[in-house]
Amino acid sequence: MAKQERAIRTHKSILSAAAKVFEERGYQSATISEILAEAGVTKGALYFHFPSKEHLAQGVLSAQDQSLPVPERAAKVQQFVDTVLLHAYRLQTDHMVRAGVRLSLDQQAQGLDRSGPFLRWGEIVRELLEKAQAQGELLPHVATGETADVTVGAFAGVQAMSQAICDYGDLLARTSALLRHLLPSVALSSVLASVDLTPNRGRVVFEEMNSPLPEEGRTADTA
Amino acid sequence: MAKQERAIRTHKSILSAAAKVFEERGYQSATISEILAEAGVTKGALYFHFPSKEHLAQGVLSAQDQSLPVPERAAKVQQFVDTVLLHAYRLQTDHMVRAGVRLSLDQQAQGLDRSGPFLRWGEIVRELLEKAQAQGELLPHVATGETADVTVGAFAGVQAMSQAICDYGDLLARTSALLRHLLPSVALSSVLASVDLTPNRGRVVFEEMNSPLPEEGRTADTA
Repeated sequence: MAKQERAIRTHKSILSAAAKVFEERGYQSATISEILAEAGVTKGALYFHFPSKEHLAQGVLSAQDQSLPVPERAAKVQQFVDTVLLHAYRLQTDHMVRAGVRLSLDQQAQGLDRSGPFLRWGEIVRELLEKAQAQGELLPHVATGETADVTVGAFAGVQAMSQAICDYGDLLARTSALLRHLLPSVALSSVLASVDLTPNRGRVVFEEMNSPLPEEGRTADTA
Repeated sequence: MAKQERAIRTHKSILSAAAKVFEERGYQSATISEILAEAGVTKGALYFHFPSKEHLAQGVLSAQDQSLPVPERAAKVQQFVDTVLLHAYRLQTDHMVRAGVRLSLDQQAQGLDRSGPFLRWGEIVRELLEKAQAQGELLPHVATGETADVTVGAFAGVQAMSQAICDYGDLLARTSALLRHLLPSVALSSVLASVDLTPNRGRVVFEEMNSPLPEEGRTADTA
């Protein structure tokens, strides 16, 4: 058990080091030696967990969408909004998420399949929209796959624009504005009337999930 | 006159070479020597036109939004749609436009101000929306600056997603879907009823602009 915990911790610190190096240097220029130096683990340990630079990059790419499904909501449109705004909040505050998103937009990353996060996020969003549709929350013409793709693509650009202009300073406001523009084409107005999509929602959901009972061993050191 | 024409041609071929090198290598890794070799001009000529790598990058960044205002339309919402779909079409077909867009999303480009294209596109789109608003084509609550920012940011992401998934194969369909999701929150439905925002519209506008009287010396070799 202790052994397994240690392996998980090593895995995490290698990924965290890889995220840092990819973010600073880009996929193409980053080297495994730099990641090794940053992680402070043995070469053997690194290659045991990640046999190649591409495995490291795929690990970082996955980190952005693996964790933290938001709490269930009665209105699935609210759950959809919470998912998007929580992601925006984590992008501002969590360097693993930021590194994953940047890597997925790194067009110089030759030989790295960057379609994964787009496709996985597309699936997550589509499932939420399908639940909303089953509950009668959506307008009758909505094609959930198309709306999911539009949402994921549009969000990727809104975050890139916020990063280029003010290093994410206005990301939550921009994400909220995006949702206010998209949702009237997607959800019934009677549903939207009781949905919270203000910029602050991302932080509210994050804090709800992290207190009082953290579900995941975030503070593993105290365990 | 001939001298000036030659200077313009040199300027264009340097920019075209810079676009190619930045697209292949990224801003950070690209060198002026590589751009020189690609352009086939003298070092003196290159530095006369562009004193530094950043000037070259800014030239490529500007190329994507300088040219081709679309023809005037009675409905300004149509002109807005034409502007977005023409840009998508040019992104599929014009390597200078593609290089500019990619550079503006190159998050490893340290020391390069990439906010320019976002801000300039934001201005272009806002002006069109203001004209539409003045003509009574928009819903009463629309804040044109915010809607312009949402459109520009969302488009940047939709193109990045299309590039990552299928190298722009479905860009026009995705852009059309984005517009179908955004516009019902922006324009009167009576206006939308006569707006063409099908994927093919980008090509239609491009062909309209390039025949029968090309306004710009695109085929300069035959002049």
